[in-house]
Amino acid sequence: MSNTFGQLFRVTTWGESHGGGVGAVVDGCPPRIELSEADLQSDLDRRRPGQSRIVTPRKESDTVQILSGVFEGKTLGTPISLWVKNEDARSEAYSEMAEKFRPSHADFTYQAKYGIRSWPGGGRSSARETVGRVAAGAIAKKLLRERFGVEVLAYVKQVQRLTAAVDPETVKAADIEANIVRCPDATAAVKMIRLIEKVRKNGDTVGGIVEGVARGVPPGWGEPVFDRLEADLAKAMLSLPASKGFDIGSGFGGVLLTGTQHNDAFRAKGGQVYTTTNRSGGIQGGISNGQTIYFRVAFKPVATVMVEQETVDVRFQNTTLKGRGRHDPCVLPRAVPIVEAMTALVLADHALRQQAQCG
Amino acid sequence: MSNTFGQLFRVTTWGESHGGGVGAVVDGCPPRIELSEADLQSDLDRRRPGQSRIVTPRKESDTVQILSGVFEGKTLGTPISLWVKNEDARSEAYSEMAEKFRPSHADFTYQAKYGIRSWPGGGRSSARETVGRVAAGAIAKKLLRERFGVEVLAYVKQVQRLTAAVDPETVKAADIEANIVRCPDATAAVKMIRLIEKVRKNGDTVGGIVEGVARGVPPGWGEPVFDRLEADLAKAMLSLPASKGFDIGSGFGGVLLTGTQHNDAFRAKGGQVYTTTNRSGGIQGGISNGQTIYFRVAFKPVATVMVEQETVDVRFQNTTLKGRGRHDPCVLPRAVPIVEAMTALVLADHALRQQAQCG
Amino acid sequence: MSNTFGQLFRVTTWGESHGGGVGAVVDGCPPRIELSEADLQSDLDRRRPGQSRIVTPRKESDTVQILSGVFEGKTLGTPISLWVKNEDARSEAYSEMAEKFRPSHADFTYQAKYGIRSWPGGGRSSARETVGRVAAGAIAKKLLRERFGVEVLAYVKQVQRLTAAVDPETVKAADIEANIVRCPDATAAVKMIRLIEKVRKNGDTVGGIVEGVARGVPPGWGEPVFDRLEADLAKAMLSLPASKGFDIGSGFGGVLLTGTQHNDAFRAKGGQVYTTTNRSGGIQGGISNGQTIYFRVAFKPVATVMVEQETVDVRFQNTTLKGRGRHDPCVLPRAVPIVEAMTALVLADHALRQQAQCG
Amino acid sequence: MSNTFGQLFRVTTWGESHGGGVGAVVDGCPPRIELSEADLQSDLDRRRPGQSRIVTPRKESDTVQILSGVFEGKTLGTPISLWVKNEDARSEAYSEMAEKFRPSHADFTYQAKYGIRSWPGGGRSSARETVGRVAAGAIAKKLLRERFGVEVLAYVKQVQRLTAAVDPETVKAADIEANIVRCPDATAAVKMIRLIEKVRKNGDTVGGIVEGVARGVPPGWGEPVFDRLEADLAKAMLSLPASKGFDIGSGFGGVLLTGTQHNDAFRAKGGQVYTTTNRSGGIQGGISNGQTIYFRVAFKPVATVMVEQETVDVRFQNTTLKGRGRHDPCVLPRAVPIVEAMTALVLADHALRQQAQCG
Repeated sequence: MSNTFGQLFRVTTWGESHGGGVGAVVDGCPPRIELSEADLQSDLDRRRPGQSRIVTPRKESDTVQILSGVFEGKTLGTPISLWVKNEDARSEAYSEMAEKFRPSHADFTYQAKYGIRSWPGGGRSSARETVGRVAAGAIAKKLLRERFGVEVLAYVKQVQRLTAAVDPETVKAADIEANIVRCPDATAAVKMIRLIEKVRKNGDTVGGIVEGVARGVPPGWGEPVFDRLEADLAKAMLSLPASKGFDIGSGFGGVLLTGTQHNDAFRAKGGQVYTTTNRSGGIQGGISNGQTIYFRVAFKPVATVMVEQETVDVRFQNTTLKGRGRHDPCVLPRAVPIVEAMTALVLADHALRQQAQCG
Repeated sequence: MSNTFGQLFRVTTWGESHGGGVGAVVDGCPPRIELSEADLQSDLDRRRPGQSRIVTPRKESDTVQILSGVFEGKTLGTPISLWVKNEDARSEAYSEMAEKFRPSHADFTYQAKYGIRSWPGGGRSSARETVGRVAAGAIAKKLLRERFGVEVLAYVKQVQRLTAAVDPETVKAADIEANIVRCPDATAAVKMIRLIEKVRKNGDTVGGIVEGVARGVPPGWGEPVFDRLEADLAKAMLSLPASKGFDIGSGFGGVLLTGTQHNDAFRAKGGQVYTTTNRSGGIQGGISNGQTIYFRVAFKPVATVMVEQETVDVRFQNTTLKGRGRHDPCVLPRAVPIVEAMTALVLADHALRQQAQCG
Repeated sequence: MSNTFGQLFRVTTWGESHGGGVGAVVDGCPPRIELSEADLQSDLDRRRPGQSRIVTPRKESDTVQILSGVFEGKTLGTPISLWVKNEDARSEAYSEMAEKFRPSHADFTYQAKYGIRSWPGGGRSSARETVGRVAAGAIAKKLLRERFGVEVLAYVKQVQRLTAAVDPETVKAADIEANIVRCPDATAAVKMIRLIEKVRKNGDTVGGIVEGVARGVPPGWGEPVFDRLEADLAKAMLSLPASKGFDIGSGFGGVLLTGTQHNDAFRAKGGQVYTTTNRSGGIQGGISNGQTIYFRVAFKPVATVMVEQETVDVRFQNTTLKGRGRHDPCVLPRAVPIVEAMTALVLADHALRQQAQCG
Repeated sequence: MSNTFGQLFRVTTWGESHGGGVGAVVDGCPPRIELSEADLQSDLDRRRPGQSRIVTPRKESDTVQILSGVFEGKTLGTPISLWVKNEDARSEAYSEMAEKFRPSHADFTYQAKYGIRSWPGGGRSSARETVGRVAAGAIAKKLLRERFGVEVLAYVKQVQRLTAAVDPETVKAADIEANIVRCPDATAAVKMIRLIEKVRKNGDTVGGIVEGVARGVPPGWGEPVFDRLEADLAKAMLSLPASKGFDIGSGFGGVLLTGTQHNDAFRAKGGQVYTTTNRSGGIQGGISNGQTIYFRVAFKPVATVMVEQETVDVRFQNTTLKGRGRHDPCVLPRAVPIVEAMTALVLADHALRQQAQCG
């Protein structure tokens, strides 16, 4: 019971890896925003499997349909229902999954919780569930851009030990899309792609870090004490499959500084307040301060490896399992649009919340 | 509009640093749990200022009163109202705060958001707000212990560069409380205390990492896809003042491993499934798997330093500000009961949610 | 932003009168309940237009598809996505609606609120929106019947001045379905049908009262103080198109009695407590007491009449409008399954809530 | 788990009839509204027991304290904590209630639900719980008046069979407060008072109808499809102790009219749209249309009567019970400010919701 995200800009996602499809209902979107399937498709294409040689080869066109909430090309203020059919339904390829729990997957925990699970492809725990998030997030991005002047971006910051040098203040969408790993540091990108290809050949997988950025957020978004802006971002990111950590601004590295080193000095210029550094990551006391918001999300290596591993079966007997079929060596390139989508959903929600109480 | 946390075990906190006090209303607590003020006071005493030479010296007895929801020593199932008076109301000590925004505090953002702020002591953004969380969390801890056999602990894992060696599987509450920094590694604790004392003398502050642990959580808690157990923990932790990051299990360090290295093998023994390693941190696919849950929270150094810093005043003029009066060199020892409280609130909520849908 | 109903058994509906269809997502349904489209179709058929000569003739097969949440014939505990295509999309028949606000319809208020509206067929304000409710409600009814032994029924109690004699304790589903007006008092039903046919011939419409009944609800459901069981029923019923009133047990008639006349005496028998009368309507202090729950919902006459009426156009000029095309003389026969659905949604939600806190 | 009302303007109430008091936390109130205890006290005095010879004589000063959320006389946008001490704690007067379930009270259902209850004075089910609602509602009324130009009123429309003639469009607060029964029809008021006094002498009680009115609500408030404005009003009213019914505009009486008789014709004048009649009660399709909102709430006769009645005891044995001590012959005069408070809470919430999505 928790397939809805957001308080005012709300998205409810549904769907399993196999079955009638995946989708989302967006409730609370303001009326009179121009919207068509094309606005959603570009981000879905960035999330789509099979888009390059370094991601999973599952065959899905991921074509989205808008079933409601849009009339003569504009949002109505009513729920927007989004639907993407499942096409590559080779459930036979997974038949061993009916019998065995894949290590570090959700097979065992879903079975323990619900006493039943849709074993083909991981069912609801499949990353395929994020299709609905990306489609809904594309609406949020449009709202943020057109009504609030806010730009949301994400990119691959680190693959295993390979780290990119990127400036959140100036990075451009085109630079992110310039290579298949979605890392705007071209030099690092080449190494990252090479690493992922090597890992793939070994039947293994690799994780890393995606950095998310929001520019142009005005001071005042965020709802203390519990719905601090960074708290909702953290929740959004840790709700993603394979994510293991979140930090913002100085983050975990900030603990090495003293208070005098860490504090962001305020300065004023032309009636505007800004900070000379941005260790706060654009948020202070849970509320945006007008500086660029930036944060990192850690993704573990994908659990499906083409190597034999110890596990148990559904009768709780010890056994082994070797991943076969489709192999996704690195989730990061496809995680980029997903991180953007979740960031946009959080910000759109907080934009409306600020408008409600203080607008 | 977001001073309520939880879906079924809900806590609403209220109160500013100065004024009639701070408190919380707990709604949804199951009936017939034995409860008295004494059950709450011990955790409040661990959070209390002035408890040792390495924390803020503000004078507060932090005595809690239960105003409702308990009858003849037992919970009624009705809202439990908790109230702690503010005693040390030296607002004059803060009068400069009326005029100037403290760097890396929430003064500026509250003013930007609400157009008004309670400047004495930081008002609602003061860490004093966590009193209500700790009192409510003590109820959640009792519920978890008595009804579900779950134990919640936290401790200081790192102060600046000083790291402790602690085993989440075996660490004991008594070892945590054995020293004033609340680090169960006695050798590291001595060094940490020495560091904090040194930093204090310099009028500076220092941050670090608190590790949280939950033992005995059965498989099945957590509500995908958005209210994954780690997502709600992440939100809870990032909703704390001064927190900058959260990671669980292998966390940010896990990105250095490959999938074959990272996966937790399942084994079965006596009809019970367990994992031979625990890089998952006790949660898979957003649902507890029966192993120990452990995670880390990064806290930045306290922003109030006894050193002159650049800032702006309420008329947006550049100026400087030097912290004076009470000086809290390190938030970590007092953050320990707060992390425990938030962990317990998340788990109690999910215990009831699991009971609702699948119980 | 309010297309979701329920706290734990949650339904989100979407869809306009014209467009890709109407549907619902049910989140929080317990796992392992046998479910197929056939379980939903029977109630949809009872709600369907064109089912008899006394309801609207719109041509819709209203065939439901389950797109997610069910695997091998059983619920998974994940969101159940339901979709019904729109077929009879004769929007040209409504073209005058693009220009003029129909009296006592929602055309004007939607335009005032959103600054845009889907004018064909009333868009989101069309009674067609209740398709999603009925489909979701059928799942709730199944859950209530199979897991909790609760039976939900509704029937036409009054059409204009014609009142039926029905005993909520004993009325049977078959008697309700025995005639096209869905009134289990066969004598009254004949008169009601005759009245509706006469009204139809005049191009006019007529309203009345639907009575809802729930039998077998155990003591203890309902969540004071705000989510009293009757409060949530009242909200559910007043959220229906064309409803104007709700009362429970003695209701508005109860104000004519004194306290001594009105009170329900408690008696005990075989360790069970019951009341000798049931003016409380099965709910006391907001919580079910084990007696039969019964209540009434007033529906106004349908606003679309085949008579010329005064109104204004979208440029706020006075004009007139005469309904044409499809004419629904009485909403009551089709409101019966809708009232049942909403009753079931409320009760299923409260069943889970009771299980969560006190189970 | 349902002591919170509202989505954006949220009130959480707490407290039992006996114990540390009753109160409320208001979360989401906009900042910078002038507010003091005096603003709340006047409505609390209208709700207070002992205010006249026709209501319960319980001795309570009901003095409210604001513990948080207000600074230098203005709201901060943070939670406003309100507290009223319990003073008249003669729990001995109720000792028989520990042993016996009072007929048509909530003693039995609370015991059945929670397995425990605060028996003195009915505990949480006591009408004393509405203190928090009235205090919170007074804030909502102020917000509505000062920021939105909306006026909320209620009055006694009917006592048993005695009905008052009141025009919702023109009735004035002063006329309502002109007599102790709070009926603005002076002639009817005299008869009503006489009836209540007679009923009181007999140790009996009497119910009736309170009518609520909101004037000045602009077109556009209300959130279809589930949070229609009338749906939230219905829920608010049915959440009140002793209420048994709600209807709006033409209400239950409207079922006697045909569509042509019932429809409200639109007319335009000076660029404003209005309706020539107001059977809709100011709401169409769940959204306010700019006309006056008016509705009725049915209250049953108070269940505590000074007459011996059959009931059962806590061991489920048949017995009898005679009310003694304080006798409240008619809840209506004190229900007036409570209906106003709940109306204001609903409208304030919807004002903010409209601002969020369409503002």
